[in-house]
Amino acid sequence: MQSKYQAQTRHNLKDSDRDGLYRTLFNRRDVRSEFLPKTVPDDVLARVLYAAHHAPSVGFMQPWNFTVIKTDAVKQRVHSLFKQANDEAAQQFVDERQDAYRQLKLAGIMDAPINVCVTCDRERSGKVVLGRTHMPEMDLYSTVCAVQNLWLAARAEGLGVGWVSILDPQALKRVLGIPSQIVTIAYLCIGYVDHFRDQPELASKGWQPRLSLDELVHSEQWGQGMDQNLAAGIAQQIDFPAHYTG
Amino acid sequence: MQSKYQAQTRHNLKDSDRDGLYRTLFNRRDVRSEFLPKTVPDDVLARVLYAAHHAPSVGFMQPWNFTVIKTDAVKQRVHSLFKQANDEAAQQFVDERQDAYRQLKLAGIMDAPINVCVTCDRERSGKVVLGRTHMPEMDLYSTVCAVQNLWLAARAEGLGVGWVSILDPQALKRVLGIPSQIVTIAYLCIGYVDHFRDQPELASKGWQPRLSLDELVHSEQWGQGMDQNLAAGIAQQIDFPAHYTG
Repeated sequence: MQSKYQAQTRHNLKDSDRDGLYRTLFNRRDVRSEFLPKTVPDDVLARVLYAAHHAPSVGFMQPWNFTVIKTDAVKQRVHSLFKQANDEAAQQFVDERQDAYRQLKLAGIMDAPINVCVTCDRERSGKVVLGRTHMPEMDLYSTVCAVQNLWLAARAEGLGVGWVSILDPQALKRVLGIPSQIVTIAYLCIGYVDHFRDQPELASKGWQPRLSLDELVHSEQWGQGMDQNLAAGIAQQIDFPAHYTG
Repeated sequence: MQSKYQAQTRHNLKDSDRDGLYRTLFNRRDVRSEFLPKTVPDDVLARVLYAAHHAPSVGFMQPWNFTVIKTDAVKQRVHSLFKQANDEAAQQFVDERQDAYRQLKLAGIMDAPINVCVTCDRERSGKVVLGRTHMPEMDLYSTVCAVQNLWLAARAEGLGVGWVSILDPQALKRVLGIPSQIVTIAYLCIGYVDHFRDQPELASKGWQPRLSLDELVHSEQWGQGMDQNLAAGIAQQIDFPAHYTG
């Protein structure tokens, strides 16, 4: 048994790599307001796109495309869509909550030097895809994994990212000339930032608090409390995220 | 302007952190066959769950739950669902492709010490959610971001993860007692591994090759070739992923 477990260490990463992953992950923020007009070099953008491209995908179908927008003309058209959608969305909230909503800056489309629309081509590798028969949405989820890889790589490069979901997808497809069979997954604003916030903006502004992890974990069956050892493990690691953000 | 750009460096990460993120990201694999029967300590599992819990989420709704399965009895019931679904899925492929499919080991449910079902509670923070009005699927996508965070954290901890999508979601919900309004997003097998593969298994076994990134990137409009600078940036960084896996 010993030799088998030794083999396991062959591809283990260093503690410094683990720290780098966690420091990036816990300091990642959804950026709306802090973009700087500083040019993002194309080699940096390329690295971030390579990170996205190395996400997992169902049946290794790699269903993603990245439409990179740098010109104000195209950004302006998307920003108009955002303004209209944002007005519609604000009306879903009432009284103080609507006032609070309207005071939030929810997109940095014009401020961010780079916008990227991440899409999913559902027929990338034919109609039958390994792993997609029982969960047809797996290709959409694969594309989301690419978004999260991109986001983390951007953070590691010192770039902020904001995911703008206050857009009508059909209108966005018309603006970018995206064919009907392609699904828009994410519209991302990317750029260097003045600073990264210590906490998520919606938490620090009192919109929504961070939930406690121990309320979100079940053991063996839904609704069943955690086993004692896992509960102890979670309690013991409660300061773990703060260790990297403090 | 200079002072503004200096401020930007305030929260920049170190080069070693950036390397750690990239080394983790490019060496992450979808593990099916290489799990070892070595116990995963609960503090390690807790860190991985904290990483998942710090994913981005629409309106900061944090819609995820994690059902952690350690017992063979529950795993066995899920494994039975997998076997049935896998037989059905195999029949979608014909001739040599079906033979190739049947030779792939596609789930490590019984081999992995830990299984985790990641779910999305679509009503976590009420019916109206900031950012979800025009893209109602954003809560599902937020939960996928949590899966990708978990996956990367696991890799940094030396743990392999396999996402099993060859399962009937309704049957899985019955086995785990998951209420009807909760959506199952991912069923993950987690454990220490004998080794991590150099390349994705479906690529090295000839099922599907890795695509070239430059064919997946457009500039300004769908279908439009990349601008010269971005094309040059991508060409220049082509060996970037291999730098971390070689």
